[in-house]
Amino acid sequence: MRLNLEKVSLPEPGPGQVLVRVEAAPINPSDLGLMFGPADMSTLARDGDALTARIPDAAMASLKPRLGQSMPVGNEGAGTVIAAGPDQQGMMGKRVAMLGGAMYARLRLIAAAECMVLPEGATAEQGAALYVNPLTALGFVETMRAEGHKAIVHAPAASNLGQMLVKICKADGIGLVNIVRSPRQMELLRGLGATHVVDSSSDTFRSDLTEAIAETGATLAFDAIGGGETTSIILNAMETVASRDAAAYDRYGSASAKQAYIYGALDTGPTILRRGFGFSWNIGGWLLFRALQRLDPAAVQRMRKRVADEMTTTFASHYTARIPLEQVLEPETVAAYVRKSTGEKYLITP
Amino acid sequence: MRLNLEKVSLPEPGPGQVLVRVEAAPINPSDLGLMFGPADMSTLARDGDALTARIPDAAMASLKPRLGQSMPVGNEGAGTVIAAGPDQQGMMGKRVAMLGGAMYARLRLIAAAECMVLPEGATAEQGAALYVNPLTALGFVETMRAEGHKAIVHAPAASNLGQMLVKICKADGIGLVNIVRSPRQMELLRGLGATHVVDSSSDTFRSDLTEAIAETGATLAFDAIGGGETTSIILNAMETVASRDAAAYDRYGSASAKQAYIYGALDTGPTILRRGFGFSWNIGGWLLFRALQRLDPAAVQRMRKRVADEMTTTFASHYTARIPLEQVLEPETVAAYVRKSTGEKYLITP
Repeated sequence: MRLNLEKVSLPEPGPGQVLVRVEAAPINPSDLGLMFGPADMSTLARDGDALTARIPDAAMASLKPRLGQSMPVGNEGAGTVIAAGPDQQGMMGKRVAMLGGAMYARLRLIAAAECMVLPEGATAEQGAALYVNPLTALGFVETMRAEGHKAIVHAPAASNLGQMLVKICKADGIGLVNIVRSPRQMELLRGLGATHVVDSSSDTFRSDLTEAIAETGATLAFDAIGGGETTSIILNAMETVASRDAAAYDRYGSASAKQAYIYGALDTGPTILRRGFGFSWNIGGWLLFRALQRLDPAAVQRMRKRVADEMTTTFASHYTARIPLEQVLEPETVAAYVRKSTGEKYLITP
Repeated sequence: MRLNLEKVSLPEPGPGQVLVRVEAAPINPSDLGLMFGPADMSTLARDGDALTARIPDAAMASLKPRLGQSMPVGNEGAGTVIAAGPDQQGMMGKRVAMLGGAMYARLRLIAAAECMVLPEGATAEQGAALYVNPLTALGFVETMRAEGHKAIVHAPAASNLGQMLVKICKADGIGLVNIVRSPRQMELLRGLGATHVVDSSSDTFRSDLTEAIAETGATLAFDAIGGGETTSIILNAMETVASRDAAAYDRYGSASAKQAYIYGALDTGPTILRRGFGFSWNIGGWLLFRALQRLDPAAVQRMRKRVADEMTTTFASHYTARIPLEQVLEPETVAAYVRKSTGEKYLITP
């Protein structure tokens, strides 16, 4: 694996296009996935200006289509329009939020339609992360509505995304069970107004989770951990609650439809399912880009409007540190931002 | 866990009911699930006329609603009507196939609507297993049609059910990838006209599976093993095929919608998912009774008619041995029928 900064020349903006000076771009877990993939991070090394690491042999098969391709990174970001196509002159000087990849750069040539103009006075930092986390959190709620569930279990819930979800569910009166990994994270979410927070590091985790599910009636879960037993533990807790309500023992488990989505891979190890949850269950992958295509367009419209309306409140992100572009590949910096500690988030400021 | 034969008195058949002398009832894996559940079979012991076994402590929590309840067993069977309600006198003397539980008995009082009258000359053995396996195999095909897939992967494919599926898919021109566990089973299915048979005991299993999936275009799988890595291996093979066809590398995996259903638990150990298959996947439980409620009623009607039409061909079952009711609880007999060897099937002949 080889990561480097590269000089590119960009053409003048054509019709429908603008050239943006990128001022801030967050490092999301999905960006780290593209940057480092399954590389063995203990083998990180500088090679001139580039950063290299070994890919374990077992992971190479699935990476075959990736070999030899140079891929720019950075899903989203914000900046100022410094040049514009002939039909986009009104965009000149505006600060915009962008989605579309290749944001870890000084300049980004992009379709004006893929930019959201920020309100007067908004900073690039406020606009840098208005797509991935906000739309994902709102996407969970719209998925819940579309699939007929009434409450959500979320893990790990103390992330920036999780904090947005707490605010959304509180405002909308939606039951939310937050799974966190420490007492400190529990305090953080309670401070935001979360009602149901359970700590997976506690001895009473499973019974706490079961009671929270019973109180909210949650039959839908979103899990960004992916590996290990989190999804399995959630489904088993849902089944325990559903069986309590059942009139008689059913050897095939309850008929309650239990759905879990794995939307991340913070733990890239295997998912372990202890199938004590009968036969009425579903586990699937959930990916924002594909969910946006599947959801009702009216719902997507509603989501986008809400992000714009609540950018400085519900959808405000908090950053652990700011990293200039030229420091992004320094090994000590990399070591910090690849940790993926819940609630820590880094911002690249080209 | 305690299993025993019990004397019961049955009332006279009322309106809409018939009394059937049960002549044959198969032991399906789903029956074994109800009979023994998670019991530790190494602790099987006679206790007077009953059979007992210890339930491991870890399994007790999920069995709480089951404790102290006596549950009759035997999902399906066939027999002769020996008494009938006043409005069902036309059923007298008819041989019928039945679904509805409590079939491991000399007599079964049942709604006439739950019986299928067998053609003149049909034996009870021919009629004993006309519900669970035939409707499950046809249910796979109807699920495939309803969800927009074009071919199926099935494991383990050499079972009675698997053999029916081979015949159905051959007759209907549907692509079917059969996963078997030995060269002998491979021969068996080839003899029935199966085109794609891959042997999980072979060194080339994964590449054989991938090529068979490529040739059929299968994006749907049914797995009765449940535990271990079978489902995971199938989804990864589907993803390998889908990525080959992709125009460019996508870090989130292919957009090809891959669906796997776990419809049994021959291996009750945990399901292990090595998520090399991107984010467009779904795994769910599949249960005949619930699928019949979900499927289009016209499809279910079509399924039932086909079972009646093809009972001696497509849906003929083969039995390893016949067991009189009084021998069902003898330890040596139990040891044989709980093995769940693929392709072995036992028939109780009360």
